[in-house]
Amino acid sequence: MPNENARPNEFEIINKYFAPLSGSEPGAFKLTDDAAIIDPPTGQSLVVTTDALVAGVHFFTADPAEDIAAKLLRVSLSDLASMGAEPAHYTLSIAVPEDLNSDWFETFSEGLAENQREFGVTLIGGDTVSTSGPLTLSLTAMGYIEKGMGLRRSKAKVGDSIWVSGTIGDGALGLLAVENKLADLSSDDCEYLRQRYRLPIPRTKLGQNLIGNAHAVIDISDGLVADLGHICETSGVGADVQIADIPLSKAANGALAENSALLDLILGGGDDYELLFTTEHSFAAAAEKIAAESGVTLTKIGEITNTGAIRLFDQNGQEHTPRQKGFTHF
Amino acid sequence: MPNENARPNEFEIINKYFAPLSGSEPGAFKLTDDAAIIDPPTGQSLVVTTDALVAGVHFFTADPAEDIAAKLLRVSLSDLASMGAEPAHYTLSIAVPEDLNSDWFETFSEGLAENQREFGVTLIGGDTVSTSGPLTLSLTAMGYIEKGMGLRRSKAKVGDSIWVSGTIGDGALGLLAVENKLADLSSDDCEYLRQRYRLPIPRTKLGQNLIGNAHAVIDISDGLVADLGHICETSGVGADVQIADIPLSKAANGALAENSALLDLILGGGDDYELLFTTEHSFAAAAEKIAAESGVTLTKIGEITNTGAIRLFDQNGQEHTPRQKGFTHF
Repeated sequence: MPNENARPNEFEIINKYFAPLSGSEPGAFKLTDDAAIIDPPTGQSLVVTTDALVAGVHFFTADPAEDIAAKLLRVSLSDLASMGAEPAHYTLSIAVPEDLNSDWFETFSEGLAENQREFGVTLIGGDTVSTSGPLTLSLTAMGYIEKGMGLRRSKAKVGDSIWVSGTIGDGALGLLAVENKLADLSSDDCEYLRQRYRLPIPRTKLGQNLIGNAHAVIDISDGLVADLGHICETSGVGADVQIADIPLSKAANGALAENSALLDLILGGGDDYELLFTTEHSFAAAAEKIAAESGVTLTKIGEITNTGAIRLFDQNGQEHTPRQKGFTHF
Repeated sequence: MPNENARPNEFEIINKYFAPLSGSEPGAFKLTDDAAIIDPPTGQSLVVTTDALVAGVHFFTADPAEDIAAKLLRVSLSDLASMGAEPAHYTLSIAVPEDLNSDWFETFSEGLAENQREFGVTLIGGDTVSTSGPLTLSLTAMGYIEKGMGLRRSKAKVGDSIWVSGTIGDGALGLLAVENKLADLSSDDCEYLRQRYRLPIPRTKLGQNLIGNAHAVIDISDGLVADLGHICETSGVGADVQIADIPLSKAANGALAENSALLDLILGGGDDYELLFTTEHSFAAAAEKIAAESGVTLTKIGEITNTGAIRLFDQNGQEHTPRQKGFTHF
């Protein structure tokens, strides 16, 4: 008797779980052809980003499948947001271990469907293969932006203001909360942080609103200091940051009050997926309106300098040297 | 003392081995930004395909790294060829096990560079992550085709002639040769078959030349019968194939002479990456010229029917039922 809940085969996975996700894009051919054929909008540039997630490295194998789907898609959408692009399509490759059954694919594809609706993207292709190793996912997201208007990391100018969206450090603290390492924090705060870690919010609308307003933009995936470092390195500038100005959530403030050593995790930890960007000083006048239109708070945290270095200052004006430099994938 | 030949870290891999591969595409920003920004040619459609390869499933871990690079790129280029597209860009995600060292990355990236030059494509992005499992590669290839001219699997018509490029069965026989299971064959023939398995030749030029000439096109990756089945299923037709007309290499003919049971492997085995296509009868008059222009032989092997089934006939007109249905990835 066949096992009702065994791992489905490659064609079943594609036909039953993935093909319906391509439904709204005729050029995906319901995933029945060798490739998708897409007509980019006239006068627009194509923005392309690829991200891979591996079980045991980027998520936990036992995480709910809909969370894995959400994180996979949102991490790439965050990259598109940092260029100011409007998301459109994605392809997905999935290397499947023996122990994933039909239920898992059902839940995973439902998670993709829900996030597709929320962010207006469509699956247009991919590959499903077997692996003796951990579940491995790779997603290539495509979006569009008016020609010549793409936001970049490398355009920061000396004297620019440095801004961030939302709150910083929740991603890294959320991982601690998932691991039950924030024992002194209320269960509500822990749950808030866990949610921030599990379900990043790509700042798509903000990215689009920063076109014409920001000089340099990056999404915070490696950590505030590391990603500011990427801006400084590619732009050939330095940066001064006022630590007291970095926006923290109520939960992050609570965790920091319990353990001040967590500051370096907040400065260096990854997975926030907020946007970090530099602007003219005059942006301050427009910031509130853009924040409201983008559905996220915006906070100025420092200035771009000609020092070639990143300096972090505490509220006494003393320079602070964080111990943690940022997340590397290995 | 640091191990000179240890696995390099993520940033070293990207900067040293992958960034140079993006050099000819300014919109790849030397892989230093969150995404690439590409301007699709005016009036062209974007063709996108994603393929994943896993060590132990699609290649052997001990295979030369340049062969893995070549196969990875060529498998996707074959998908683009089957749509008639001109290849342009690709992104690469790579999940890296502990035991891959700098030498491996050096050789792998040289293999990519060589194939980029040969096929006119450029790396524009990707992701490098760690895995506790086998080396896992996912490649998304992008190409362009004049709007509305993309070739499809689903356009076969009853009465069409069925054609294939090159020779059939070499891929599957090549895998046997790699496994030293073709003991009776000459070492030259074995080496020829091994090479055909290791180094598929995407029929890019042929695909482009089939625009306006072919009704339905697919590349043979799952096997002749399975891929003809994909054409029949998506087109709603059947097919009659004359087995004696299927073009075989000298080496495949030799293997078949030694063991007639290998016929079913030739009919059902995958990895040939030749194009299988259907045309009007009148295509025969143009075939030789198109073959010469495309640098590959073309052979008519049967006809599209209204039977809804694939029938294979031997030289006595008897129907042959193969035992092997084609390659599934698990």
